[in-house]
Amino acid sequence: MKAVFVNCTLKPSPEPSNTELLATVVADELTQTHEVDITWFRLADLHLDHGVKTSMSEADEWPPVHDAIAAADILVVATPTWVGHPSSYAQQMLERLDAMISETRDDGEPLALGKVAGAVVTGNEDGAHHVISEIAGALVDIGFTIPSQAWTYWNRGPGPGPEYTDTEDGHDWSAETGRTMAKRLAEVGRALATAGI
Amino acid sequence: MKAVFVNCTLKPSPEPSNTELLATVVADELTQTHEVDITWFRLADLHLDHGVKTSMSEADEWPPVHDAIAAADILVVATPTWVGHPSSYAQQMLERLDAMISETRDDGEPLALGKVAGAVVTGNEDGAHHVISEIAGALVDIGFTIPSQAWTYWNRGPGPGPEYTDTEDGHDWSAETGRTMAKRLAEVGRALATAGI
Amino acid sequence: MKAVFVNCTLKPSPEPSNTELLATVVADELTQTHEVDITWFRLADLHLDHGVKTSMSEADEWPPVHDAIAAADILVVATPTWVGHPSSYAQQMLERLDAMISETRDDGEPLALGKVAGAVVTGNEDGAHHVISEIAGALVDIGFTIPSQAWTYWNRGPGPGPEYTDTEDGHDWSAETGRTMAKRLAEVGRALATAGI
Amino acid sequence: MKAVFVNCTLKPSPEPSNTELLATVVADELTQTHEVDITWFRLADLHLDHGVKTSMSEADEWPPVHDAIAAADILVVATPTWVGHPSSYAQQMLERLDAMISETRDDGEPLALGKVAGAVVTGNEDGAHHVISEIAGALVDIGFTIPSQAWTYWNRGPGPGPEYTDTEDGHDWSAETGRTMAKRLAEVGRALATAGI
Repeated sequence: MKAVFVNCTLKPSPEPSNTELLATVVADELTQTHEVDITWFRLADLHLDHGVKTSMSEADEWPPVHDAIAAADILVVATPTWVGHPSSYAQQMLERLDAMISETRDDGEPLALGKVAGAVVTGNEDGAHHVISEIAGALVDIGFTIPSQAWTYWNRGPGPGPEYTDTEDGHDWSAETGRTMAKRLAEVGRALATAGI
Repeated sequence: MKAVFVNCTLKPSPEPSNTELLATVVADELTQTHEVDITWFRLADLHLDHGVKTSMSEADEWPPVHDAIAAADILVVATPTWVGHPSSYAQQMLERLDAMISETRDDGEPLALGKVAGAVVTGNEDGAHHVISEIAGALVDIGFTIPSQAWTYWNRGPGPGPEYTDTEDGHDWSAETGRTMAKRLAEVGRALATAGI
Repeated sequence: MKAVFVNCTLKPSPEPSNTELLATVVADELTQTHEVDITWFRLADLHLDHGVKTSMSEADEWPPVHDAIAAADILVVATPTWVGHPSSYAQQMLERLDAMISETRDDGEPLALGKVAGAVVTGNEDGAHHVISEIAGALVDIGFTIPSQAWTYWNRGPGPGPEYTDTEDGHDWSAETGRTMAKRLAEVGRALATAGI
Repeated sequence: MKAVFVNCTLKPSPEPSNTELLATVVADELTQTHEVDITWFRLADLHLDHGVKTSMSEADEWPPVHDAIAAADILVVATPTWVGHPSSYAQQMLERLDAMISETRDDGEPLALGKVAGAVVTGNEDGAHHVISEIAGALVDIGFTIPSQAWTYWNRGPGPGPEYTDTEDGHDWSAETGRTMAKRLAEVGRALATAGI
């Protein structure tokens, strides 16, 4: 199976990304335990037009992301938490994916049908559950299936505190939850593929 | 397959429930097209304790709801929209289901694993998408899988307006979307069962 | 000035309430520094009907809560976090307050106009910011003004962890934020009263 | 008094913006009835860096928006609804405003203290209440006060439907609500200024 990981950090490469580090735990588990090939995108490194169409301009670098998602079985949205919300890149991605609602497969079904998706969230303060709900609600709308517990996070309240890489606190829980996430994505993804959905 | 429909209207029987009417479109499609047996609960007719355990007191009428959900393949939460949120009965139900996170099957996996869930939402004003995200986010946390487009709604903005039964506007869209919801729940539910998840 | 604190814990008295403990920091600051009189309600101790009217039945114990809020300048909603949401009692309260949208003062303005409100949130895992947004959004709809930083919280991710009273971690931040909350509620409440809003 | 209106439509000028049209109702009322001067920004026409600092690069065109908001009494965020959320430009704006949490006035108080804010939302489907809650929750965090009913919207469910300019349905309600919004922003803004907050 194939998975696409989209890192929605606000920081372009080569700045280190906490979100990428936690997402890598999930990606490694998918690759090593569940034989899933991963393609990564970091939206802050791309020129992305704003809009709700798959292709917006000559300069627009969204179409390769779209095509990779269209060819994959699994989508993972990895995002930091800002003012308690998914990042502006995550929202921009959901807007671009909005076009997928009306794109169909050869059998006339929605393009995203049969694909599964999940979320990886980091932040230096409280907020992950809402970010996960926002992403899950949008992706279910667009046509993805969200397996149970298809998420992990590392957010630490109360109040602003250390970032993920500033401490070891809670890393074990986030990693173990991430490995469960990988299992859920892989097993539900396979079940949908086997069933021909 | 078996489904449980939980109507979270604030109104006890025999008051008519808009939410029940729209949910019935989904239930009928599940029964007639997808051979699913339905069990209904209307929480306003039960004595439900508040809390996060499966059984709270002698008088508590939640355990039969819990047991029906535990025995079912599909859960549908049907709720009106109040101040833009799922109803207090829907939230009370999610709190009671919180106990299910730590309940396990014979194979040690979470009790809800392998079950699918969706939402039916009504309201006399804007708000359905958020209600769907709130319910989906919570149920994914508890262990349910949310199939793509496993929801329908009838909410009508801008501003307060007619209720579902006061008009025919939009009924066709809500019913067609409800039939797609039934298909998604049935096909993903079967895929998970076949895969032994 | 007068304030009403509504504790939306799921636990009836005399069980200890983490939410009450943190809310008391805010209440004490309002009383001692800002000369505000406090009236407390704990919804789990009352018989509350479900619905969206101010009075639902003979047995309904909501009307005294309504009347106290109607007579107060400040409303504080104190709630635990369950599945990332305000508690079912908090939602039930917002539903009952929905009636206030159409209640008017002698001058024909909405009853809640001129009142300020805020939120106190606790939980043994991530979720406070969303709970605050849900409560603020609903109360703005009903007619309350939300002063800047009119909230405090103690939620601690990642993953399920200790409750507020199980640790001292973060208490100082939550208390200091709570005292700022008291100041904002008092100063904006006074400004609206002085302006005759 | 001064107000800043930020249009977060995804479409650059000169494409027509539904969101601008509805926001103009509010702006006109502020100008004509409440003697408020308006400065407009349309984020899709600017080069905005991503990040959480007030100034990110030489090319970054956020600083003039920041400075206008810093000098104003009233902020209005006008946004379309995409996948049920505020637009990616609205989220990008909230991220840039995050820096304002730690910016202070001469008296040491937060820069946004004493300012009021509200939201104007449009969309061709359900979603406004959640968008309003997301924006209000974030702005209260950053330091703005949200007056009661400081919002208007035009969203129309169920299902995808006409855009604001495709129909006259509901325009009267949205306009009347917008005029109330203008009154609330002006009167609470004046009350805070008079009180020296």
